[in-house]
Amino acid sequence: MNKIITISRQFGSGGRTIGKEVALKLGIPCYDEELINKIAAKSGMAKEYILESGEYAPSTSWIGNAFAGRDFNGHSLRDELFTAQRSVIMEIAEKEPCVIVGRCADYILKGTADCLTVFVHASMEKRAERIVEVYGEQKEASAEKRLAEKDKHRKAYYQFYTDMKWGDATHYTISLDSGKLGIDKCVEIIANLYK
Amino acid sequence: MNKIITISRQFGSGGRTIGKEVALKLGIPCYDEELINKIAAKSGMAKEYILESGEYAPSTSWIGNAFAGRDFNGHSLRDELFTAQRSVIMEIAEKEPCVIVGRCADYILKGTADCLTVFVHASMEKRAERIVEVYGEQKEASAEKRLAEKDKHRKAYYQFYTDMKWGDATHYTISLDSGKLGIDKCVEIIANLYK
Repeated sequence: MNKIITISRQFGSGGRTIGKEVALKLGIPCYDEELINKIAAKSGMAKEYILESGEYAPSTSWIGNAFAGRDFNGHSLRDELFTAQRSVIMEIAEKEPCVIVGRCADYILKGTADCLTVFVHASMEKRAERIVEVYGEQKEASAEKRLAEKDKHRKAYYQFYTDMKWGDATHYTISLDSGKLGIDKCVEIIANLYK
Repeated sequence: MNKIITISRQFGSGGRTIGKEVALKLGIPCYDEELINKIAAKSGMAKEYILESGEYAPSTSWIGNAFAGRDFNGHSLRDELFTAQRSVIMEIAEKEPCVIVGRCADYILKGTADCLTVFVHASMEKRAERIVEVYGEQKEASAEKRLAEKDKHRKAYYQFYTDMKWGDATHYTISLDSGKLGIDKCVEIIANLYK
């Protein structure tokens, strides 16, 4: 069984950067952007749709959308996407040890792979600083508003498909406050645990 | 400001042992049993009552009890106990760097001390193994039942006095699954972070 590191993270916590650096340190691949490409190839859906429909869902009435547009069997395009996502993540995990960022990988691989499941979070203040630094200012919404919106969507997405509480410490092997500990320290802890 | 490590933990996760060993490794005191003695001295209440009324509350109708026996100002003996507990924890934190186990120390010290807040958890299975090993079998209740009962009380106690969700990863600097990582690894991670 391959050893897999899954990273769930609050938007702006630096979880994606941590995933990349851990992978670099361990000499294993990090699936983030590449995961989206594979899901697109598998499902035939556009990358933009995958990004939008997943945890990045921009709609404010996401739960409403999740139930909309279902066929007679109650399946939606979104469910099909989740099925494709599941199968891509299972294939990746079977192929090689790696880091997988987001996309409910912790839940999908539960019981089938040797996972180190990580949750990365930080205070609203620290995340606001970070998203302005990384993504720049936005005229139409404050950093805090953008964060609250993203948090809401990721949470709803995770809970809809996994039936588990996102951010509940007991679901993860380790949860880290990247705002207090710093990105480098988080990378060091995770990489050391993997060895 | 003294550096304080606070440890919140699920019953049977080994959080208390981890606290003691971290303290030993760092050469600082660990307040657990000693905390109860100090609260007893401060409040004039019996040690047994403090244990029973706190997170170890054995009653199944704990929330009911929390509202019972209040005076005309709405204060109960339990509230008085919490006030004494708060003042003891504040004094300890002002005096010296240390480890404090349980008793909502993370919440009480928020914003006033330099805290590394830790939450220790483990699966029901691992905790059941551990409590049978440490406390022995009990005829009247299975390990799982004892755990569910304790979890419920600690959670209710924490949420009643802090208004925060117990076990929510975002409240802690670091959360660790001691069942997966092992006690020694948890001790090592926490001690390294403190340095």
